[in-house]
Amino acid sequence: MRAIVYTGAGGPEVISVRDVPDPVAGPGQVVVRVRAAGLNRADLIQRRGGYPAPPGWPADIPGLEYAGVVETLGEGVAGVAPGDRVMGLVGGGAQAERVAVPAGELLRIPERLTDPEAAAVPEAFLTAYDALAVRGRVARGERVLIHAVGSGVSTVAVQLAKWMGAAVVGTSRTATKLEAAARLGLDEGIDTSARGFAEALVAPVDVVLDFFGGPALAENLAALRSKGRLVLLGTMQGPKAADVDVGRILRGRLEVIGSVMRSRPPAERVALVEEFRTRVLPAVADGTLAPIIGETFAMEDVVRAHEAMEANRVFGKIVLRW
Amino acid sequence: MRAIVYTGAGGPEVISVRDVPDPVAGPGQVVVRVRAAGLNRADLIQRRGGYPAPPGWPADIPGLEYAGVVETLGEGVAGVAPGDRVMGLVGGGAQAERVAVPAGELLRIPERLTDPEAAAVPEAFLTAYDALAVRGRVARGERVLIHAVGSGVSTVAVQLAKWMGAAVVGTSRTATKLEAAARLGLDEGIDTSARGFAEALVAPVDVVLDFFGGPALAENLAALRSKGRLVLLGTMQGPKAADVDVGRILRGRLEVIGSVMRSRPPAERVALVEEFRTRVLPAVADGTLAPIIGETFAMEDVVRAHEAMEANRVFGKIVLRW
Repeated sequence: MRAIVYTGAGGPEVISVRDVPDPVAGPGQVVVRVRAAGLNRADLIQRRGGYPAPPGWPADIPGLEYAGVVETLGEGVAGVAPGDRVMGLVGGGAQAERVAVPAGELLRIPERLTDPEAAAVPEAFLTAYDALAVRGRVARGERVLIHAVGSGVSTVAVQLAKWMGAAVVGTSRTATKLEAAARLGLDEGIDTSARGFAEALVAPVDVVLDFFGGPALAENLAALRSKGRLVLLGTMQGPKAADVDVGRILRGRLEVIGSVMRSRPPAERVALVEEFRTRVLPAVADGTLAPIIGETFAMEDVVRAHEAMEANRVFGKIVLRW
Repeated sequence: MRAIVYTGAGGPEVISVRDVPDPVAGPGQVVVRVRAAGLNRADLIQRRGGYPAPPGWPADIPGLEYAGVVETLGEGVAGVAPGDRVMGLVGGGAQAERVAVPAGELLRIPERLTDPEAAAVPEAFLTAYDALAVRGRVARGERVLIHAVGSGVSTVAVQLAKWMGAAVVGTSRTATKLEAAARLGLDEGIDTSARGFAEALVAPVDVVLDFFGGPALAENLAALRSKGRLVLLGTMQGPKAADVDVGRILRGRLEVIGSVMRSRPPAERVALVEEFRTRVLPAVADGTLAPIIGETFAMEDVVRAHEAMEANRVFGKIVLRW
């Protein structure tokens, strides 16, 4: 089969599309014929050598999510048949013509979604759902602050937080992204090219979804009201925080919660997928919640897709298709 | 009535014992004739001007916990009668001959406990229970690290964590406190006068109870295993952390959880007291769990009690009695 392969660690020059052996469906697994796969920032970090695949997943084929069709079933797999349209998260290897995945982590693709749309669902929806509902415990009537509101995760998080009954504030350095997010339900947009978000808030918030990391920590803590939760999903601006007021965490009874998806053990991922399937997927199936695709690239144009992501110019997900 | 009164902010010279008006039982309150009251580090911080009483509580009479006898009932109070032996938390004012408290926050004193023993229960047990069970979510078989293992809260936390099925590691700069904690069930003691605790741990831990604050943050994070929880209960070494690795929180899926008891709204305190009454108090009543009193002082000797706490020489609670 053809696959995107990282031939080393570095810039776009390490990306190639080449022939590799087909994966085989082990016990409890199915092989999916991939039609489309989302591109994530983690793929770019992995390309630069910073985020290796966890054990048991292809080390040199990137891709954390896929949409496609079940092709072959491994031993002991029930409840799914060749030809079923499925999507899901993987620890790596989705940017290939085929990927072997645990049957328990499959999600059926709602009829309304095209393959590229389905490929935009797993990482963004499961990350946003886990961050808002599970780790952040957003309650009806609370205020949620979502950073970098044009990202794949954030464009879903805005919708999900609204759907959960929260008021949603978003930040971006790009005015057009704030306008686009407003059409997804964003209540307040803060243009951080002009000023700090904490000072711009009209009121403190209950939950922050952060992708920036260390440099933003103090301001994130300042934005939280009593019993607020800061959910950390990335360190795009770097991992180190220079001056943290632990007394603020203490007195505010705040929580700082780290969350990554990729390294989670399979049982945990299955449980999250199951909860998502029951609670959220019906709202995707009826169109209440939708993946936001900013741009779609042919798999062969993967280098251009990486460049688009690195330029931060896309609103929503970047998807690769065969 | 007589009460301990802070006449200003500063050293022991601001402490006096003087006559003040009796409190009156408002609707839903009872007046308790106080027999004994625990001394807490918060009382010392308040004396120095750093920790004012929350609204609705005496501003100049310290004391966050009491044991005594119900004297008078306010309007609408049922299920309690004059003469009942009770103990509990208050937002301030316990170091007096009488204190008015919400009836819903009363705990009956188990028969086995003397008044000074009962006065050592509320703050230590409710804080330790909330930190370990509610905020830290300690599960059977987990490892818990408890700092400053000779404190009132810590001497209870060691017992509670063992009772919940955890393995317990404790730190102290005093070898004799580690020996005393071993008799309470401590599995591993780390003498931090000699070396850092994170390097001394034989294995990482699931939960840390911290009273030190900023300077200890990085080492506390280093001590946690994946999905570990750091519960912050104090900033004894200061509030500021200079160099925090947010990436460590993220990758480890860690939680940093701030917790203070005093400023909580009444409804939350009542809910915690109710949970404690059902789940833990029976184990105090049958002697499985016990408050540890290090030293008892007459209320008139309050200055000596402050000095003893500031010298860090007492293992367990310091209690004042009339």
